[in-house]
Amino acid sequence: MERTEALEIVKKQITKHRYEHTLGVMETAISLAQQYGADEKKAELSAIFHDYAKFRPKDEMENIIVREKMPELLLKFNSELWHAPVGAFLVKTEVGIQDEEVLDAIKYHTSGRAQMTLLEKIIYLADYIEPGRHFPGVEEVRALAEKDLNEALIKAVQNTILFLMKKNQPVYPETFNTYNDLVIK
Amino acid sequence: MERTEALEIVKKQITKHRYEHTLGVMETAISLAQQYGADEKKAELSAIFHDYAKFRPKDEMENIIVREKMPELLLKFNSELWHAPVGAFLVKTEVGIQDEEVLDAIKYHTSGRAQMTLLEKIIYLADYIEPGRHFPGVEEVRALAEKDLNEALIKAVQNTILFLMKKNQPVYPETFNTYNDLVIK
Repeated sequence: MERTEALEIVKKQITKHRYEHTLGVMETAISLAQQYGADEKKAELSAIFHDYAKFRPKDEMENIIVREKMPELLLKFNSELWHAPVGAFLVKTEVGIQDEEVLDAIKYHTSGRAQMTLLEKIIYLADYIEPGRHFPGVEEVRALAEKDLNEALIKAVQNTILFLMKKNQPVYPETFNTYNDLVIK
Repeated sequence: MERTEALEIVKKQITKHRYEHTLGVMETAISLAQQYGADEKKAELSAIFHDYAKFRPKDEMENIIVREKMPELLLKFNSELWHAPVGAFLVKTEVGIQDEEVLDAIKYHTSGRAQMTLLEKIIYLADYIEPGRHFPGVEEVRALAEKDLNEALIKAVQNTILFLMKKNQPVYPETFNTYNDLVIK
């Protein structure tokens, strides 16, 4: 699917603010793909659709998680996590994207997972560091991303865990697995 | 088993420095047991034996973990974790302690686990805050322990995760489970 068509589709699904964010993720993902030797078209497509389900009603997402036999553990954790696996499902069924690598990059862009692919790492990181992001620690991750994809990813995942722990919020186990998997290597 | 006999047994297993620490854990555990309504004798016994295996050779501990079918995942993580489950095993087989509550308090005093018992929480925390402990954050946990056992435990587990993450070291999944279990409640 060409960029223009993909952007037209996603534009209808998300707010203007989130669309600007998506454009930032797209540019960043393409740039990281060039830098680290990933497929630029797949990076572009994954980035464009990564937040496709972001504004679906919670009950719709919950129904999809149960019906499609996604990990029900998701429902015990922050609903911010849900749009990623639900997004991958909807991008496949509503938009017709069949590329499993692209779908997995969408699916794991919020939680991460152990054994992330290069494309998954790029989308996770692009979502974290795109130019519209402004929060404590983002500059450090941006600088690391210039030098070492895994180091940048470790820092981003650590920051995410820290952020949740400071608020005494639970951390989705797959995010912990992502951290351990990256530092054990 | 009486305190004097128990202390005699453990004194032969550990260094003088570690024995002083053990006395600190014992006093703290008894005090927490009084405060939070746990069995004082069980707290005393668990505390006395919590570091029973601390100075066993690594290869002996590794053999026991494999032979006794303990989680082999332990072997992929820091060997500092091993003395707790191995200690519980040796305190049962060498010392003859049969009380499963006491053995579990020894077993989980380093990693923690989801659904910790009151006694397990007390030993974990006593080990963390006994008067001989001096490290950043310990005062805050000591103060919390005066008011709320779970809040103190959450902070102690958070500090442990933070400490490991700062060094880019992996965190044993059971420790993450402990954190999530405590904050979800």
